[in-house]
Amino acid sequence: MSALPPGATIGILGGGQLGRMLALAAAELGFDTHVFTDEPDSPAARVSTAATVAAYDNEAALAAFAASVDAVTFEFENIPAATGEALLRAGKPVRPGPDCLAVAQDRLSEKRFFVEAGAPVGAYVAIDHLDQIGPALAELGGEAVLKTRRMGYDGKGQAWLRGAADAAGAWAAIGAAPAILEAKVPFVREVSVVAALGLDGSFAAYDLNENVHQAGILARTTVPASVSAATAKAAIAYTRAIMDRLDYVGVLAIEFFELADGALLTNEMAPRVHNSGHWTLDACAVSQFEQQIRAVAGWPLGDPARFCDVTMHNLLGEAAADWHALAQKPSSKLHLYGKRDARPGRKMGHFTELKPWPRG
Amino acid sequence: MSALPPGATIGILGGGQLGRMLALAAAELGFDTHVFTDEPDSPAARVSTAATVAAYDNEAALAAFAASVDAVTFEFENIPAATGEALLRAGKPVRPGPDCLAVAQDRLSEKRFFVEAGAPVGAYVAIDHLDQIGPALAELGGEAVLKTRRMGYDGKGQAWLRGAADAAGAWAAIGAAPAILEAKVPFVREVSVVAALGLDGSFAAYDLNENVHQAGILARTTVPASVSAATAKAAIAYTRAIMDRLDYVGVLAIEFFELADGALLTNEMAPRVHNSGHWTLDACAVSQFEQQIRAVAGWPLGDPARFCDVTMHNLLGEAAADWHALAQKPSSKLHLYGKRDARPGRKMGHFTELKPWPRG
Repeated sequence: MSALPPGATIGILGGGQLGRMLALAAAELGFDTHVFTDEPDSPAARVSTAATVAAYDNEAALAAFAASVDAVTFEFENIPAATGEALLRAGKPVRPGPDCLAVAQDRLSEKRFFVEAGAPVGAYVAIDHLDQIGPALAELGGEAVLKTRRMGYDGKGQAWLRGAADAAGAWAAIGAAPAILEAKVPFVREVSVVAALGLDGSFAAYDLNENVHQAGILARTTVPASVSAATAKAAIAYTRAIMDRLDYVGVLAIEFFELADGALLTNEMAPRVHNSGHWTLDACAVSQFEQQIRAVAGWPLGDPARFCDVTMHNLLGEAAADWHALAQKPSSKLHLYGKRDARPGRKMGHFTELKPWPRG
Repeated sequence: MSALPPGATIGILGGGQLGRMLALAAAELGFDTHVFTDEPDSPAARVSTAATVAAYDNEAALAAFAASVDAVTFEFENIPAATGEALLRAGKPVRPGPDCLAVAQDRLSEKRFFVEAGAPVGAYVAIDHLDQIGPALAELGGEAVLKTRRMGYDGKGQAWLRGAADAAGAWAAIGAAPAILEAKVPFVREVSVVAALGLDGSFAAYDLNENVHQAGILARTTVPASVSAATAKAAIAYTRAIMDRLDYVGVLAIEFFELADGALLTNEMAPRVHNSGHWTLDACAVSQFEQQIRAVAGWPLGDPARFCDVTMHNLLGEAAADWHALAQKPSSKLHLYGKRDARPGRKMGHFTELKPWPRG
């Protein structure tokens, strides 16, 4: 239960923008960082104290990494379970624990876990074979989305069906892999909760995020979300129930659909810092990235209070080429991730528009 | 006049906490960083993309450094002028320019420069020999502070005199070096301005800082300062006049004494980011560190608007050992600099207490 002192080294699995922002947050608290990634010249490695470039199943590299760090976290949930276990065997805390990854890595186990935790989910059917899709689609009302159980993010591994004729194409599109078919949800709004559980069991949730996705990728997040106090309270209670049941340590994000009557359906979780929480860097004393580092280091959680209203806009692909104009927006903070190649749809950066409260 | 694109490399001379916070700010804008310092295992090098550890007059190391960066800045004003000139000869912009360093490195030339720019200063006498001190002290009213002309900071190279009997001791205490003797100023308040001039000539000033020093070292800064609007306006006007006259590019801080009638005396300047501007990290969209990186990279300056009230407290020496308690303060942001050794009086970190305005 003891807290790592400043000067300790935080290990980060993953070299992308989330790893980069985690490394920057760790530095603000006086920690050193060591990034482990399979990507040469990664965004996170360029701001970390040390970096290892190796495959996630390279046992020698993992052993050397484990020997150099005091605790480990990760920036994405598709880390092989064996990687986390190798680090645990080396005696280093991995937070959150690999068990949480196992739940989040499979959409079917995730849905079942939500239900067990008391968080409502939309109708769905597990799909293992093409010929299950037709009957399942009929059961779900004729319109549904087929999602691979594993390795999906940012709209990847998903295909919409609007009739039985779409079954074969959708099955092929997701790679004919184990999947779930989810009924179309008539939602009025997408919201998410970003929250943390500390090693001491304390809980801290940021204010609810209202999210707009385009082509399956988050486009913007606005805080405060235009939901009722009761809906916000329910979303945070579901989140806490899920985190408690996972015996979680760290930051976790859960996405919900809000229905017309204010009820929520739990969509999916990310056992890590989340794009919909990026605004916390600029509108809170303690960001989601610092909160994650605090939890990983066994520190007390920070105050998640917000001190202005805010909208966060993602910069995808060539949108980041407008940096010169974006840098001139008043009351705005630009974040660029140092990625060399602006492929279409790639998350290159984001900016927040801050809407300060009137001066008292 | 062209702006460096994200992905370019910003060179930073100096490896301390200011260099560290500059490197973190550069990373947020997508820049790589290269720190040049004579200190092994420095705070700034541990968060930078590349680091060179060499003496500031190592010509081969400077040449290699120059070849690897796109523009250069520095974290402290006592960089040898020859260092900046070597980098300029290698064809790399150094911002602010070495000329500004020359003015700031000598208290006598600095005082004269302030007067030429129209900024009032307190009474002082240049001292080159011990036997000048007695008459000068009498002229200045019998109480004065003797300061070395060069290499002074954080109260170092200073000695107070309360009578002619103190002359020999004070002269010895400052190393019998060329000095100035400054009359004691009956100030009611110490304030500072942190402002930036962009490569395009644009000017941006943060709100005035009200500073409390203890034993010659900044203890805390509160914003807003309790000065009249007229006094704040005058301080910013003096700052701008000085920066314009220096043909400055980057962030500069000027410390003033406020007298009982609201008039200001210009005390000293720092041609760099400044301890009294650290609160801008947490209470502004664009911090003084980002502002400096923007100026160095030829970007438009950012909006210096503040969105809450704030007090910044320095953590000197063992004060940083209270990190566990400090981490639990609500509405507070802790910054630790990653220094290994908490020597008495050493700047180990700071924290800001944020006082949000009431929600509208």
